Amino acid sequence: MNSFQFHNPTRIVFGEGETRRVAELTATYGRNVLLVYGGNSIKANGLYDQTIDLLKQADIEVHELAGIEPNPRLSTVQKGIDICRREGVDFILAVGGGSVIDAAKAIAAGVPYDGDVWDFFVGKARIQKALPLGTILTLAATGSEMNGNTVISHWDAKLKRGSGSPHIYPKFSILDPTVTYSVPRNHTVYGSIDIMSHVFEQYFSLTKNTPLQERLCESILQTVIENVEPALSNPNDSVARANLMWSGTMALNGGLISVGVHTDWATHGIEHEVSAIYDIPHGAGLAVLFPNWMKYVYKERIDRFVQYAQRVWGIQRDDRTDDELALAGIEATRAFFTRIGAESRLADFGIGADQLDRMAEEAVRYGEIGNFKRLGQQDVRNILEMSL
Amino acid sequence: MNSFQFHNPTRIVFGEGETRRVAELTATYGRNVLLVYGGNSIKANGLYDQTIDLLKQADIEVHELAGIEPNPRLSTVQKGIDICRREGVDFILAVGGGSVIDAAKAIAAGVPYDGDVWDFFVGKARIQKALPLGTILTLAATGSEMNGNTVISHWDAKLKRGSGSPHIYPKFSILDPTVTYSVPRNHTVYGSIDIMSHVFEQYFSLTKNTPLQERLCESILQTVIENVEPALSNPNDSVARANLMWSGTMALNGGLISVGVHTDWATHGIEHEVSAIYDIPHGAGLAVLFPNWMKYVYKERIDRFVQYAQRVWGIQRDDRTDDELALAGIEATRAFFTRIGAESRLADFGIGADQLDRMAEEAVRYGEIGNFKRLGQQDVRNILEMSL
Repeated sequence: MNSFQFHNPTRIVFGEGETRRVAELTATYGRNVLLVYGGNSIKANGLYDQTIDLLKQADIEVHELAGIEPNPRLSTVQKGIDICRREGVDFILAVGGGSVIDAAKAIAAGVPYDGDVWDFFVGKARIQKALPLGTILTLAATGSEMNGNTVISHWDAKLKRGSGSPHIYPKFSILDPTVTYSVPRNHTVYGSIDIMSHVFEQYFSLTKNTPLQERLCESILQTVIENVEPALSNPNDSVARANLMWSGTMALNGGLISVGVHTDWATHGIEHEVSAIYDIPHGAGLAVLFPNWMKYVYKERIDRFVQYAQRVWGIQRDDRTDDELALAGIEATRAFFTRIGAESRLADFGIGADQLDRMAEEAVRYGEIGNFKRLGQQDVRNILEMSL
Repeated sequence: MNSFQFHNPTRIVFGEGETRRVAELTATYGRNVLLVYGGNSIKANGLYDQTIDLLKQADIEVHELAGIEPNPRLSTVQKGIDICRREGVDFILAVGGGSVIDAAKAIAAGVPYDGDVWDFFVGKARIQKALPLGTILTLAATGSEMNGNTVISHWDAKLKRGSGSPHIYPKFSILDPTVTYSVPRNHTVYGSIDIMSHVFEQYFSLTKNTPLQERLCESILQTVIENVEPALSNPNDSVARANLMWSGTMALNGGLISVGVHTDWATHGIEHEVSAIYDIPHGAGLAVLFPNWMKYVYKERIDRFVQYAQRVWGIQRDDRTDDELALAGIEATRAFFTRIGAESRLADFGIGADQLDRMAEEAVRYGEIGNFKRLGQQDVRNILEMSL
């Protein structure tokens, strides 16, 4: 275990009906709010009307930024920053999934910053302050509701970049599992794979002597695996939805499950290059890439992949070699993703080989990526090629 | 899973040598510090000198309250409050284990309060504000370094009572595993049993559909079980000490592992009555009581005890009935406590039957205790009698 700092000040308010507390929680921080959301889903399920009504009843002024994209765009973030400045907004409320929350974080950081908010995503500046923000989560997936990370796409430049800061942790996040009843089947699948992928990035590590962190990772993986299919069979399964929602938050709540661990994040880096160009859902890209990344790197530390196969998938050793066990765990991952309905090839999204070089080059623009195995441009290209 | 709120603002600074950051962290909150500690251990291992030197080099004024008891006493807390008021202290630094941290929390809450600080422990008043406090943890045990709880003993009245508030979460806690190298064998044992007991109180619950919370509990239990004996064989085992330390914090960090779970805490209530009269170490009392509580209550929800036996102790079902499996898990607990050197009977501390009625009566003074099984006075007496 390495040295670490951990500090996660986000207040979680979890449970059925807790969305009704939005005005009370918001009023602690501001009276002039920018409501950030995506498309029609929160209008269809009533959450939009309820939130607006509650805020207005509490005499909170509400401005709106709708239409946040699944891969939220810099231009949309800039629009939000303009509204905040023009209207003197003092609090941002994100109602949505990870994309909406990430956009809200970028807006929050951009408002008090003199330069271009994109500076934070290309290493030109660090976030030094931000407007306070809160969230109502509508999708179990990214964990953005309880961390200080944000990922934004510069659509014209076909770049997708992340940034992070202690200043953009949400002040509160309301997690009401019933809100996710209306999440469509494919996004339930992609969100769940996103959760599992976050755990993979932290679990497949060369850091030794971290038994508690490893078990926490395995706990989340097992919980997600058990709960996805019940949520797909019955979208109103309150137990499955609650367990997925809390697993998503725990998987990336400021790195609690991987404190003192050297984490990887290469696959996320590669996926960002794919979805920067092709605009596919993040979880869908991860579903395609992760099993191939696993196959490409597992020999770097086979005991961790053996442990994964045995503890997470319950695969018995019997007369298997370590190699066979590791590969069985990877195959179980792929089979599970397929069984719940995820795509397994880039071709399923009409993606061919023509941009492989560009994606591989972009992925390593700041040098090799990943820590479990350091990946250079050719490695990234190989993994992309395995994924075609 | 029930609805819940979770908010834990404590900053953890974990790792070898991190105790050297004390002045930098303290200076964020105050310049006039009350240093609270126990006896000679931090003088013997150099931590006292180092801390004083670092604070003074940073021009931080230091007052001292030494001699915090293992079951910290109200009279000592009151002494601390007097010093803070007299000297205009603006920050409290606890250097020690749970007792020292609990005393510091009570002092922090007492300073800005007009009445008697004991009011907070008997339900006469709620903590509304407190001086900020930080900690350097020296013992893996109570989790007090990352929660808002405190337990204080009113020695004259033979009462031991808890209180809690969001206002007394430490602002920071420095966890340096090397500081625990000098913890004596018996306190390594008692601290580890305390950690396991905190998990038991949250794990043995009637709340259903909490698979992630249950697995987090099991993860901590397994990690402690694996690491106690290595730490006993080699007190300087950096891996074992680090794993025990982080397990202790995770076991009671504001209830993260039991969010949405109806927890028990009856055994802690009973133990408090024992140590209020006999002043035995908290973990020693828990080691005696917990297996007997388990035997007394396991039929209330045998599936949880079966799961405990199988997942935590790896006991195979073979041809065992649920009852036999549950009891095998309880026996494994007792056997482990005995193997690592804990006492198994109250008689080992010279405690006989003469105060059983008084302890049982006090334990239920506000009504039945516990949630896994509601315990009345006769139940508590029965468990105490099983423990003689």
